[in-house]
Amino acid sequence: MIKKINQMISQGQMIQLSEYLQNINPVDISKLLMELSSKDLILTFRLLPKDKAAEAFSYLDKEYQMKIIEKITDSEVEEIIEQLFLDDTVDFIEELPSNVVKKVLRNTSQEKRNLINQFLKYEQYSAGSIMTIEFVELKENMNVKDAIASIRHTKLDKEIIETCFVIDKNRKLKGSISLQDLIVSSDDTSISKLTDTNIVFTTTTEDQEKVATLFKEYDLICMAVVDKEDRLVGIITADDIIDIIEKENTEDFQKMAAMKPSEEPYLKTPVLELAKHRVIWLLVLMISATITGSIIKKFDEVIQSVVILAAFIPMLMDTGGNSGSQSATLVIRGLALGDIQIKDYLKVMWKEFRVGLVVAFVLAVVNFLRIYFLESTDIMVTLTICISLFFTVIIAKVTGSILPIIAKKLKFDPAIMASPLITTIVDTFALIIYFSLARVFLGI
Amino acid sequence: MIKKINQMISQGQMIQLSEYLQNINPVDISKLLMELSSKDLILTFRLLPKDKAAEAFSYLDKEYQMKIIEKITDSEVEEIIEQLFLDDTVDFIEELPSNVVKKVLRNTSQEKRNLINQFLKYEQYSAGSIMTIEFVELKENMNVKDAIASIRHTKLDKEIIETCFVIDKNRKLKGSISLQDLIVSSDDTSISKLTDTNIVFTTTTEDQEKVATLFKEYDLICMAVVDKEDRLVGIITADDIIDIIEKENTEDFQKMAAMKPSEEPYLKTPVLELAKHRVIWLLVLMISATITGSIIKKFDEVIQSVVILAAFIPMLMDTGGNSGSQSATLVIRGLALGDIQIKDYLKVMWKEFRVGLVVAFVLAVVNFLRIYFLESTDIMVTLTICISLFFTVIIAKVTGSILPIIAKKLKFDPAIMASPLITTIVDTFALIIYFSLARVFLGI
Repeated sequence: MIKKINQMISQGQMIQLSEYLQNINPVDISKLLMELSSKDLILTFRLLPKDKAAEAFSYLDKEYQMKIIEKITDSEVEEIIEQLFLDDTVDFIEELPSNVVKKVLRNTSQEKRNLINQFLKYEQYSAGSIMTIEFVELKENMNVKDAIASIRHTKLDKEIIETCFVIDKNRKLKGSISLQDLIVSSDDTSISKLTDTNIVFTTTTEDQEKVATLFKEYDLICMAVVDKEDRLVGIITADDIIDIIEKENTEDFQKMAAMKPSEEPYLKTPVLELAKHRVIWLLVLMISATITGSIIKKFDEVIQSVVILAAFIPMLMDTGGNSGSQSATLVIRGLALGDIQIKDYLKVMWKEFRVGLVVAFVLAVVNFLRIYFLESTDIMVTLTICISLFFTVIIAKVTGSILPIIAKKLKFDPAIMASPLITTIVDTFALIIYFSLARVFLGI
Repeated sequence: MIKKINQMISQGQMIQLSEYLQNINPVDISKLLMELSSKDLILTFRLLPKDKAAEAFSYLDKEYQMKIIEKITDSEVEEIIEQLFLDDTVDFIEELPSNVVKKVLRNTSQEKRNLINQFLKYEQYSAGSIMTIEFVELKENMNVKDAIASIRHTKLDKEIIETCFVIDKNRKLKGSISLQDLIVSSDDTSISKLTDTNIVFTTTTEDQEKVATLFKEYDLICMAVVDKEDRLVGIITADDIIDIIEKENTEDFQKMAAMKPSEEPYLKTPVLELAKHRVIWLLVLMISATITGSIIKKFDEVIQSVVILAAFIPMLMDTGGNSGSQSATLVIRGLALGDIQIKDYLKVMWKEFRVGLVVAFVLAVVNFLRIYFLESTDIMVTLTICISLFFTVIIAKVTGSILPIIAKKLKFDPAIMASPLITTIVDTFALIIYFSLARVFLGI
């Protein structure tokens, strides 16, 4: 497509280009725009019909939005802002440098400016900050005929009108009506009679993660948002929730790999930013590894007399670490999805203990066969290794499962108790067991 | 709530209970039902209004669904099945033992049975298997008046009617119309004129993960599904996509912690099943750790002469492993979200090399200060440790970033190239560098 557009631009076929763009989805248009040169970007953007221009604009990366805002006239800015959904406008204003923000606000109506300011006050990650104000509201004292007239009157572009929300004379949320119920009811039916009063809603200050959990639990497509006085102020739609769920998951992945989460896509994050997000945890973990070092130093006469013992330290540590992080990952994920609660901690530990028994037994036996028969290692050394492995795996499983629950109980994010931290802790146990057994079995 | 229900049951207040249940959301009713005894479960379920009974039923766990189906009469089964959405019916039939399936199918109309059979043929994880057939379709030769009449006629319960899909006389998908456009247009406007022909749709055989990607990319609330002949056969809604996204993420978390993914929630998975999913990868990783063992054996004279070197092996290995898994996690997540493509491999490696330089430098310096000044270790030993650390971290970063991309290129799931595998690979590099440097610096 991009080739065709470049060709039409170079041949000056502006009318053809304009017609061609008519039939492309705004998301795809935004992708095409980002591939054009700065000059062609502005030129092509101006050829778009107003509503499509605004929607394509909302999908552009920040840098391209700025390029456009800087180059177009004030009245063009005004047109885009009027067409944009309020939540998209706010997202975009939040990230702009102040000179561009000024140009935008100068071209926005007083009414919309007030709304934008109100939105900017909602805390980040709150329901208020992700809601949209483009929804259908009906008064409970209307009848069906009034309601349909009111819907016809409301000029909405895209957000969901399937569900209309019903408010009383103080704007308090009373419930919802599906558009279908409206259409199939007779004109004089009262709205309050059709209202489903038993709906799931949230408040502007609620955490977005909790809102996402409600969407999942109740299979919702949209949800009403009320203020402190129970007045309806906005709605949240499932497409925005999908974005939030993916962001929260990305954050968990990053925390579980011992990184400070970052919001930008990988390729757009600067090197120093990436380094900063990683080095803190690496330092913490590196310094806590001092403990394992001092254990080995304490037992150095054991290694000196049976050097072969050193050869099995990496295997023992890695297997312990891997066993522990399997358990930690399952429990962290279970806590995030609500499958596991803090009160389940005994159930979880007991389960992991039994899983640990089975897994540890299999690993120890396989290891015995390999080390004793294939590598012809001394029988007492082999036993030291295999019995250490057995206990290390069980301890790793139980520790890995309980630490995330303790973190949650202490109001930390369970995700920090993932692989890296578990590994460091399990290493300590593994080495103490290993060297103590070696002393006993090998009589050092 | 459960206390109140138990009280009403024990006091025989059935009418009050029935009224009380009227005002509870079906999702919450299903949770309450699962807390009741088998006897009270059936009793309470029978008190529910038909439509609520069917919806609450669809949210019950499999074992409770079976309990109910086994106990209620054939005509009651029939009522539930008629009220259930087809996709919920299919989900539920797929998981039942055959004697219960027979009872269900015996009480299902021929027409619905045919539909169910057709659905069961769609491959698991395909768009066909997750779609619903409850949607509004309009013919392109209708006018607005016919269309609204047809919507009034279609008896839909809950799924989305905001978007109506337009088909031609051969049932081929032509596009979509929003219900709002219909309501605000005059009665004699032709449907084909209002149809937006430029919509995103999918086919029954498409992978559900690809469908989820389209939802994210185009911010969709619902999407049409067509068969091989482009005929409209169903729609997929955003609430189902949310479930799929969470499942895919859970799978990635499990694979990245070296486990075979499992579908059941943690607390409901039997111990042996959990053990089976974990032991395979642990065995593979344990046996590949033989390599690190043989490296240490090869250099045993180095350890024998300077035993203190052994004390820093865990720190070196853990820091290398953690550095590598940070990079691997970011790249795996970037690939999953589409932020990183296979063709970006040089960009990614170059970025990780530079991040590695910064991080490695900081870690090496801090380590030097700690080991040389605080622990008063010999200067040549300290240098051996710090320089090894420096190179290990850089190699770990680059390896961790490139292996997931190679996996994707070879059509494996990049998620397997996470922490555990990276750790095992990085260990090998770390030890070779460490002992080689020790030989040179310490003249062993």
